[in-house]
This record gives sequence, structure tokens and C-alpha cells, in this order.
Amino acid sequence: MAKRILRINMTELKAAYEPVPEKWARWAGRGLTTSIVCDEIDPMCHPLGPNNKVVIAPGWVSGSPAAPSSGRTSFGAKSPLTGGIKESNAGGLSSQMIAKLGLAAIIVEGTPAKGSWYTLVVSKDGVKFESASDLMGKGMYEVDELLWKKYPKTAVIGIGQAGEMKLSNAGISVNDPENKPGRYAGRGGLGAVMAVRGVKAMVIVDEGGPGVEIANQDLFKQGRKKLTESIQEHGLTKKGGGLNAFGTAVLVNILNEAGGLPTRNFSAGQFEAAAKISGEAIAEVCEKRGGEGTMGHGCHPGCIIKCSNIYPDASGEAIVSCIEYETTWAMGANCGIEDLEFIAKMTRECNDIGLDTIEAGNTVAIAMEGGLLEFGDAEGAFKTFDEIRKGTPLGRILGQGVEATAKAFGVSRVPTVKGQSMPAYEPRAVKGIGVTYATTPMGADHTAGYTIAPEIAGVSGKLDPLSDEGKAELSLTFQAATAFIDSTGYCLFIAFPILDIAKGWEGMAESVAGVTGLNITGADVVPIGKEILKMERLFNEKAGFTAEDDRPPEFMREESLPPHNVKWTITDEQLDSVFGWVHEGQPA
Amino acid sequence: MAKRILRINMTELKAAYEPVPEKWARWAGRGLTTSIVCDEIDPMCHPLGPNNKVVIAPGWVSGSPAAPSSGRTSFGAKSPLTGGIKESNAGGLSSQMIAKLGLAAIIVEGTPAKGSWYTLVVSKDGVKFESASDLMGKGMYEVDELLWKKYPKTAVIGIGQAGEMKLSNAGISVNDPENKPGRYAGRGGLGAVMAVRGVKAMVIVDEGGPGVEIANQDLFKQGRKKLTESIQEHGLTKKGGGLNAFGTAVLVNILNEAGGLPTRNFSAGQFEAAAKISGEAIAEVCEKRGGEGTMGHGCHPGCIIKCSNIYPDASGEAIVSCIEYETTWAMGANCGIEDLEFIAKMTRECNDIGLDTIEAGNTVAIAMEGGLLEFGDAEGAFKTFDEIRKGTPLGRILGQGVEATAKAFGVSRVPTVKGQSMPAYEPRAVKGIGVTYATTPMGADHTAGYTIAPEIAGVSGKLDPLSDEGKAELSLTFQAATAFIDSTGYCLFIAFPILDIAKGWEGMAESVAGVTGLNITGADVVPIGKEILKMERLFNEKAGFTAEDDRPPEFMREESLPPHNVKWTITDEQLDSVFGWVHEGQPA
Repeated sequence: MAKRILRINMTELKAAYEPVPEKWARWAGRGLTTSIVCDEIDPMCHPLGPNNKVVIAPGWVSGSPAAPSSGRTSFGAKSPLTGGIKESNAGGLSSQMIAKLGLAAIIVEGTPAKGSWYTLVVSKDGVKFESASDLMGKGMYEVDELLWKKYPKTAVIGIGQAGEMKLSNAGISVNDPENKPGRYAGRGGLGAVMAVRGVKAMVIVDEGGPGVEIANQDLFKQGRKKLTESIQEHGLTKKGGGLNAFGTAVLVNILNEAGGLPTRNFSAGQFEAAAKISGEAIAEVCEKRGGEGTMGHGCHPGCIIKCSNIYPDASGEAIVSCIEYETTWAMGANCGIEDLEFIAKMTRECNDIGLDTIEAGNTVAIAMEGGLLEFGDAEGAFKTFDEIRKGTPLGRILGQGVEATAKAFGVSRVPTVKGQSMPAYEPRAVKGIGVTYATTPMGADHTAGYTIAPEIAGVSGKLDPLSDEGKAELSLTFQAATAFIDSTGYCLFIAFPILDIAKGWEGMAESVAGVTGLNITGADVVPIGKEILKMERLFNEKAGFTAEDDRPPEFMREESLPPHNVKWTITDEQLDSVFGWVHEGQPA
Repeated sequence: MAKRILRINMTELKAAYEPVPEKWARWAGRGLTTSIVCDEIDPMCHPLGPNNKVVIAPGWVSGSPAAPSSGRTSFGAKSPLTGGIKESNAGGLSSQMIAKLGLAAIIVEGTPAKGSWYTLVVSKDGVKFESASDLMGKGMYEVDELLWKKYPKTAVIGIGQAGEMKLSNAGISVNDPENKPGRYAGRGGLGAVMAVRGVKAMVIVDEGGPGVEIANQDLFKQGRKKLTESIQEHGLTKKGGGLNAFGTAVLVNILNEAGGLPTRNFSAGQFEAAAKISGEAIAEVCEKRGGEGTMGHGCHPGCIIKCSNIYPDASGEAIVSCIEYETTWAMGANCGIEDLEFIAKMTRECNDIGLDTIEAGNTVAIAMEGGLLEFGDAEGAFKTFDEIRKGTPLGRILGQGVEATAKAFGVSRVPTVKGQSMPAYEPRAVKGIGVTYATTPMGADHTAGYTIAPEIAGVSGKLDPLSDEGKAELSLTFQAATAFIDSTGYCLFIAFPILDIAKGWEGMAESVAGVTGLNITGADVVPIGKEILKMERLFNEKAGFTAEDDRPPEFMREESLPPHNVKWTITDEQLDSVFGWVHEGQPA
């Protein structure tokens, strides 16, 4: 059975299946959410107005048998945080289940009567619109639990209190195999867009779904095998390798060593207590308190990398899954906080209330710079989350993220691009990632073009992170490859092995070609990624974005960052060269 | 003695006189502040960062003997509210005194040590940097009073608590002849830019200044006479005419009648209690309670229009000077409030705290739409100002104006352009003013191109306000003439007589030519105005503004406005035609 689009109209409380139109037939994941956003959403609409939509799509290989680490769901909309296009993808249970229902995408549009909230139960029989009145005001831990009582073993997509309040830092949660929230389409405020649709939660029941058709079983199996092997061979992704043993936070010590770990609201590149919040420290606590399975946890079925963790308290009880690199940095180094227990508890607050942890940690740091708290005040930082949960005026400031908080407290050192705050890599010390932050259509985002691979991790060669040279081209190539990977359903971490091991790259492409029947080879990855980027850039242009939106903040050009004492030196011309080709006839 | 520039460096706490460079020699008022902002401020700088400046300039004729109603001071900077260029001008005492000191402009730049605040005493002897520690945390009523104890009869420019907190709706106050605050360069948050410079107040001591040189006395006198006569003849501006008898609020009933009085956050064009907040009602109270001089008050020496009032309480004591049309609308109809006493008290709060009343009233209306208060809750509205004064989190939301408040409370019906909220004319019911709101470089601003003159008041002909036809050209002509008038130092209300009475238009130009020796005639007014507009548009382009920033909000295209049941129908092409000429070789 051919894949279909499920369109859910919240104004009329009706849902309908549509065939996938020709123009979208090639696409899945980010390529599809971007295509639908560009075709159906007015770039000039108010992000919280009636004309925005939430588009949800699994990747090309999502739901295919034993495609390794392929549980990413893509969410797309116009972002309340950036005002531009936003694709944010998450792990957890939803991708494979939506795919198994035979759905290419779910489009949620319209707005119900004011004050009406729904749980949408999506199954092979269509959509049930259940009142969500029992879930309102509740955090995602409770929402997930309540919904599994009624719909066990389903995927639950939902928003916490931040989403209900339509705050710009509200993310969309997806539950993990243990039915905990924390797999977030976190960035860009998409939870607020879902709230305007009156949707508190969606339950995906895959039982009896038609499953995913494989166009060419042999090619799929061949690709899957090559990709799997490359993941199992690479030092970062293999069993017991860096990500599996220490989680993504393995990067803390590495970035600190490189002088690129943003500290105390991007005022230094090294944090004196980095070791205390590192992946090694997390692994030690997990081993001591939590035992087996608390490191090397997988966020979705079929993951063979397993970089997640379940961080335990002193009694061995789980506090949260998981403390990522970005999280331990955002709540830790960037706030001058060195207590992992507080970092875990703050992360749990974010996962429950429905906040992106990167933006949330950066926001606390800005509030510290603005004088609301002292840097290092872990207890004070923890309490701010309760303000957001309760929707106090302070909470409504902080829940909107960095720029809103900076304005409220008169701070001009604001580490954002396009209204979105920077992740855990200092652009002055790692220039390529700064190019990505500046130019990606998504607003400052490391996952959009992760040049850290060659600049820091030595993947696909080793480049000098402090050098400006070639960083524009580098960022573009990574942005394009990422846009492709974000369309596959595979986790972005396959990038490490496939960049270093040729059969991995081929295997990824072959597995996509095998599932879809599309004529895609490894050589098509970057060009197809560029097609997606072009759509996204053009959306942003129609929303009023210009070259001036592709700039890092002023203070990074003016202030030298210790320990290297470097400023942002990449020229505007270099930045503009990244997407110069968009207005030429063809992608370069 | 030739006019000079006074440059005050707050980093080094030094001031220096500079000759007026050739490139700025032609300019005064808005033309000069715009020129300096464009030449000296990086359009991409953070508005609250170290590289923004405050530029202050009297007009061409300011300080010239008996130039009628010529007390406007122009303030320029990059706006924290819009992110674009901002010129905001005020009445009060400062314009004439700065001019009499022989200053073409004052440039305040740099930032002092954190936590240092100054009162700058500007006299013929230069600048004294006095500590402002005695003034900090104080409202402008007290600041003006304290400074006059030390420096009686001087002009006082200052910021209230909103400015100290660097809030985006902080204005700059100028005292009136009674030494009350309330003559505001209100729009665009320039008070926050002054705060970043560490300047709480400026005292202008004109004693012993060289005065204003008149290049051609005969021509000046001839022009002044023609202009004065035209003001004294025109129905709106003559003694006992509309503005003198009822103040600017004479417009309330007129706009209400026309269905163009925005009501309850721009959801209707008529307010059922309009008469209660009208100029007629204000005049009645003044007559009953206040007696002579409480209507027909002049905001600066030499004003012959005298549209101001001093609104009294039941005991005859002044509450505030003055309740403008914009104020009685913003705090009244737009919030569903019909109690003039509360409107007067809220206006006083704004003048004391240092807030633009248009933005402040719109903000209360947005908070009402967002559920913080009920429409019509005068007491609740009044209390919100105390939150701002105290800098509570709620105050820090509201003190930033409409867009910040809309985001905090999830409101998508947001009547702003370029981040600045709309004044008291509904663009759906008065199309030409909507074109001005959309396209002026200043963000939604009625004074930038007051097409109300022909569309509502029947000045310079009578046009159908509901018609789209010719409104782009109309707005451009008004915007250009306004940019010229804003450079003269004359009050914009001279526009009524000079548009209707030919000798007035000539007289304005001749008086400018007489003072300056420039070869300016009536035919040059619009072309010179266009030169100013072009500079401003180019600044905004360099700050990242595009055609998409020249759009009214989405909801005005979608919702019909009663009673005419009209939507915004002017096309984007019509809007883009207003400034299409900027990128042609010459102004059209």
C-alpha cells in the first residue's frame, strides 16, 4: 500500500487521508516536513496565529526492519522563536510507529474553539479526538504515564506546561522505550505551535498498520549491512566506544581542552570544573549508583549506538534520561554550575515542563548575566524552572528563551543567531561551527552542520578549529549532508562512521534506495541535501530574512575569548558565500 | 559664531566641541540626527550595546526669535524596540536652549563603568559630569524638581525608572515651562539607549550662550510672518480653534464617527464611550475644575497653537499635562476604559516612569487580550504601571511594550509594524495612515506621514479613508514633508495651516532659508524630506530590514473591522511602491 498523508483539521475536528502528491513523493523526514511547510505555510504568517501548522514525518527508512539507529521523527513549522522555518527532530518511539501506519506525514492544522484541548489518537482506523481535559496543566512525565494506562506501548507525542502557555521555548516531547519524556523536538518553540492547534498530546497506535514497503529488499539489506558494520567499527559509535561508554558528554573534556567550551554565558572557553560535569563523571555515577543499563541506554528500539544514559540519584532511582553533552554544558559550564545532581534535576524539569534544554540553560546564564542570579547558583537556577511551570511573569520571561530574557534584563551580550541561542561550541574557538550557527536556516544549531567532526573529533580528517580557512565550504557540505541524514530517519550520529568509512556512506544511500526505490547513491547525498537547504533558505527569505540574519552577535567580534584570546574573524563575505548558490540556477 | 557639535564620551567622561563637518552642514533636527546616526552607528550593532549612541539636535529655526511653535528637539539612535533607525522628537524647553548654546547637535557615546550614572550639565562652558546617585530610582517628576533646585529655569532631559532598566518602551523626557515631565521623545525606547550611556539626566543651561545666528534677517522675518499668519488663520490651529480649544483629543469623536478609532486591541473601529474620553470631555473638566490655562496650554515658550492641557483632579490640582488624543485613546478606547480620571493618572505614571503612552496603552490592551486583565478594568490597568516602576518580572514584560507582552501571553493579534505598536488610527478604516504605519522607517507611527489630514480632517482636500486608491503616493508625500518639518524645529501641527494656506508653506521654507542662508524654497520641502527618508531606509536595510518588514500584521488582512466591516486590502505591491525610488539613482 502506498504511503499516505494524514491531514488533521483542528478547526473542524476532522481527519482525512490523502495520497502523497507527486511533488512530495521523493521526500521523507526533514525533506518532507520542509517541503510541506514551504508549500502550505505562509512565511509571513504569525507563528502563533491560525495559519501555522505542525508537520510530522518519519524518515525514508524509519520502520524498516533492522535499519540501525533509525528512530528519528522530523517536526516542521514556522518557528515562534526564530520567525523562520524550523525542522527539529527527535528520537523515541514515534518515528517507527508512524511509518508502520503507512503514513508519510501527519499535518496538523487549524485551531479549535478557544480553551479546547485534545489528545489525538492516531491508529490504523484514523484519528480519535479525545478531550485532553484530564491532562491539562500536567507535565510530560504524568502525561506519558496516564496515556500508557489507556494506550500501552504506544508512542506519545506531547507538550508540557510551557507549550500550553505558548512560550517560545516550548518543545515537543516523544516518549522513550521506558515511556519517559525527554526525546525532544526541542528547538524553536514547536510546542507552542502545537498548542495553538489545541493539541496537548498525540498517541500513535501502530498495531495493525500496513508496515513499511521495501522496494528492493536486496539493495536495502546490502546497504543496511554496510551501514551497520561501519557503526560497529568506528571508535565513536561502536559498542564500548566513546558515545556508548560516556554518552554525548564525552565531549565535555575534549571541548574544554580545546578552549571551546562556552563558559558563563560565552565569556570564556574553558570551565575550571569541566571534569565534574563530563561524560566520564556521568559514567562513574551511573556505574556506582545505577548499575547496568544506566549508561549505554538506547532512546529508541533498534539503536545500536546507545549513547543515552539514565542518571540515578544516591538511592539508585532514575532522575532523568538523559544528561546529554548539550545539557550538562547548558545547565553546567554555561551557568558556572558544577553539580551533576542539580544538572540532572534541571534536565528533568525541562523534560517535564517541555523546554529545550539548550535554550533553557542559556536562558539561566543570561538571567545570571542580567543580575537575577549569581553564576554558579545551582539552587537558584533550579527554582527558576518552577516559575516557568507555574507561568508566573518571571516564568513567562524565562520560558521564552534567551532573547526575551536578555531584553527583560537589559543584557546585550546575547549569544543567538536568528533568535535562537548557541549550543555548546564556542564559535570564536571553533570557527566552522560558527559558520553553521550563523548561516543555517534554523538559527544557531550545531546539529545543522556539525563541523566539530573534523575540527575537534578528527573525523573525516583533522582541521584547525581556530583557522578561518575553508570553513564556509566545510559548513555547507556538512549542512547539506545533514539535511539528507535528517531525511533518512537515521540518527545523525551515523555521520561519524559514514564520514570515515566509505562503505558506511554508500550503505546509508543504498538502504534509502532499497526502501524507496529511488535512484539514490552516495554521490547524491550532498546535492539532495542542498535541495532541502534551498527550500528552507527561500522560506526564510520570504519571511524577511537577509544576509544580516546570518551573523554572529556583535560581542563575539569585539571581545576576545580566553584561553586562546580569539575573536570572531570570519568575514561577512565568507558567511555570505555559504548560500550564495541558492540564487544561481542550480545548487553548486 | 558657527554652530558646533558637542561630543560627549561617557567611557572617558570627556566632552569636546567639533566643527560641523561639511557633510552635515545643511542639516538640523531630524535631518541631522539621521545623518549622524547613519554615519556613526553600525546598523548591526546591538541597540543596548556599547556602540549605539544618542544624538540630539534642535531644528533649523529652533532658538530663533519668535519663530512660532518651534520648540521641537530631535533625538536619534538605533532603536531597541524596532532594531532600526529611530528619530523621535519632543517639545518642551530643550530645543531652544540647545540652539542658543550654539550647538548643532549633541552626540552622547560610549559607556561608563558599570553602575555609574551621571547628570550631564551642558552650558556655555562645556559639560560637567555630576554623579546622578541622588536621582537614581526616581521618577521624572522628582528628577525635574530636584534639578531645578540646583539649576532653575533650565531644560531637563532625563529618563525614568523604565530607562534605568533599559526597557524597550523607555522614552526620553523633556520638561515643560512648568518644569513638569511629559514632553517625550517617547517612541522606540531611546531612554534605554541613554541609560546604556550611564546618563540619567542632562541639564541644558543656555545662559550666556551665543544664540542663533540669522543669515538673512529679512527673509527670516518675512517667512516667520507668513507662517505665523497661516497658523493664526487656520481653523484647527488658530486661537480658540480645534486644537487650542479641545487639544489633540478633539479627534476622538471625529475618528469614532469615521469608524477608525481602534477599540479593545484593534477589534473594532468605534468605542461606545468615545464621548467620555474626548477632547470635549477633557475641556469640560478643565473648565469646571481647573479654570483658565488648563486648556490651551503651551508645551514650550513661543508656541502659538497651544494644544496642551493640564488635567485637574476634583480639587483643581493638576494630575498631568497633558492628555493627548493618543493617550486618551491608548489608555481609553483601546483598553475599553472610559474613566478620564484613570486615564489622566495612568498618563502621569507614564510621564513619571518614563514610558511612551502609545506603546504603554497598547501594551495594557494586549495584556487584556492575553487574559491578564479584563478589558475595561481601569483600576487593574493603573496598577500595572507600578509593576513597571518597581521592575517586577511582570513590569519588565509590560515595560518592553506590545510585542514582548504578546509573546509572554501567547497573543497573535499584535498591532505592530517593525516591532512598534500602532497609534490611534485603524489602518483598515483609514488606509493611507496604514500605508504610513507599514512603510515608514520608524515602525508604526502616525506622525511619520499624517495622511489623516486629507483622509479625515479635510486638510489639503478630502479623500475617502476607506479607499485604497492613491494612498501609496499620498503617504510618501506626507512622509517626505514630515521629514522636512521634523528638521525645522517647528511643531508638526504647522502642517495643517501650511497644507491649506500657500503662504504658510512658503513661509516655513523662507524662515528656514532666512536662518540658515540655505537656498531653500517651498518647492524643496518634499525633495529634501526624501533625502532624509532615503538615509533612514538605507540604514534599516543595512540592519536587515526588507519589504517583509513593511507589512501590517496578518490579522488585519483576515479579520473584518466593524462598523465598516473592512479588511486591510492595500496590496504588497502598493506598499512596495512607496519607497521603490530609493534604489533608483535619484528620489522620484
